Amino acid sequence: MKVTVIGLGLIGGSIALDLRKKKFATELIGVEANEKNAREALTLGLVDKIDTLESAVSKSDIVVIAIPVDSIKQVLPLVLDHIAENTSVTDMGSTKREILEIVKNHPRRKNYVPAHPMSGTENYGPQAAMEELFKEKICIICDQEKCGPQHLALIEKMIHLIGMNIAYMTADEQDHSTAFVSHLPHAAAYALANAVLAKQDRNIIFDLASGGFQSTVRLAKSSPSMWFPIFQQNSDYVVEALDVYIKHLKDFRDNLKNKNFDNLLNLINNANKIRGVLEGENKSLIKNEETNVKFYTK
Amino acid sequence: MKVTVIGLGLIGGSIALDLRKKKFATELIGVEANEKNAREALTLGLVDKIDTLESAVSKSDIVVIAIPVDSIKQVLPLVLDHIAENTSVTDMGSTKREILEIVKNHPRRKNYVPAHPMSGTENYGPQAAMEELFKEKICIICDQEKCGPQHLALIEKMIHLIGMNIAYMTADEQDHSTAFVSHLPHAAAYALANAVLAKQDRNIIFDLASGGFQSTVRLAKSSPSMWFPIFQQNSDYVVEALDVYIKHLKDFRDNLKNKNFDNLLNLINNANKIRGVLEGENKSLIKNEETNVKFYTK
Repeated sequence: MKVTVIGLGLIGGSIALDLRKKKFATELIGVEANEKNAREALTLGLVDKIDTLESAVSKSDIVVIAIPVDSIKQVLPLVLDHIAENTSVTDMGSTKREILEIVKNHPRRKNYVPAHPMSGTENYGPQAAMEELFKEKICIICDQEKCGPQHLALIEKMIHLIGMNIAYMTADEQDHSTAFVSHLPHAAAYALANAVLAKQDRNIIFDLASGGFQSTVRLAKSSPSMWFPIFQQNSDYVVEALDVYIKHLKDFRDNLKNKNFDNLLNLINNANKIRGVLEGENKSLIKNEETNVKFYTK
Repeated sequence: MKVTVIGLGLIGGSIALDLRKKKFATELIGVEANEKNAREALTLGLVDKIDTLESAVSKSDIVVIAIPVDSIKQVLPLVLDHIAENTSVTDMGSTKREILEIVKNHPRRKNYVPAHPMSGTENYGPQAAMEELFKEKICIICDQEKCGPQHLALIEKMIHLIGMNIAYMTADEQDHSTAFVSHLPHAAAYALANAVLAKQDRNIIFDLASGGFQSTVRLAKSSPSMWFPIFQQNSDYVVEALDVYIKHLKDFRDNLKNKNFDNLLNLINNANKIRGVLEGENKSLIKNEETNVKFYTK
């Protein structure tokens, strides 16, 4: 299978590594706007060669678009313009409503399977690529009824091959859910980093930075060029999530300030329940063991 | 050296493991109010035996108090009442002002070296104890000029032996700094957990929980009985830290809501600088290579 990966950073580079290792891709072509990253990706063996977008996608069986979501809006229509009739296209973007709006009337819309792998690290660029980044994680596929069945099946096969389970939902559900579970934690980390950076006496604070602080602000190290357009495209739902979060922070702060310690202890005990929830006591998924596909019941 | 560890949870159990492995402790006595934890600690071999507080501390060379900070306020005076003249005492509490106030006029005040190891995990109880938990981390020692020199030297030796560097500061500086670097991230995690738990559609959100979310709310799994009294004792500085944080979150939220995207990008780029800061470009410490002690220049 000939695979073109557009964008050879953390996500694109990691998927290229897995697709080669699993022998899914017999030829890997990279498209990369940044010359330094293109050279690095070749040196690291992420792809076999670098090509222009038009040339690469016109002769590929699968095209994986792994670039920031603002660039996806520009590049996806071009890709659909230039692919062959049977080529399947997917993207790895963290937002979906605006991207789908752009291509909703494209004659090749059925070739495109909108995907969002819920996996990553705070590192970026070709050097950040790693094998098995996606293993055991969830990939969202949006509005699957609008995909051509053969394209959907091929992209599902590829996603399962790299070890992911699939959750199906509408683009609106995906943007709303990820606002809380992914975009909000990143916004919170950026704000926490700024809060602590703003302290005059910050050197002593950073020298003391223990594991707890580091794991909380880890996300603030994430690529601004990836995250800024995510916040732009999902601003309504991220604002909603921030409003809920700020309300809960204020509750915590007010109870502490006013020494309402019974209330404060309730807040802490309630939050502590997240341990059980995250460890799977409360999973809503119905797992189909045979296909490794997860379907939501809602 | 005969060592009594009071409180055999994550911190007390881990220090016991290290002190035995390093052959610093020839006998380890545990004092533990919770019977189940006491039995577990014996089964796990964290200590050689369990004893009552008075009996244990009266015949020990060193007493390490590793219990929640509200309990430290009750137990520390009792310990100082019952130790022999040459016994050294330290604690592992995350706050210091209130604890020091309680014992400031105790005739054995000089035997006590107030310490705060900046290390931990979100797990708790004897089972959470692990070797090398403290390695390469920083331990704060407060108001060291009020400690007897031989007691200070012995506790410093013990702290270095378990792999920690030491930062010296006043109890006020320690409570202020840790409010930002440790207590605020925990408060933020508790509030984030509550914000997401409050979502009606939370099952879908937790099923999607990716690495980013998990690492951010990890701290919300921490022991409420340890953290609640920390927030109580350090409420003034934690409220200050929360106010700074909420201000930065609101800035982020308002710029997003009002589509002031230039400002938003500036906030993100500024926060992203934390990568360089955390990776050591801006360290204020002067490290004395010979003693492995770090002194603050301020």
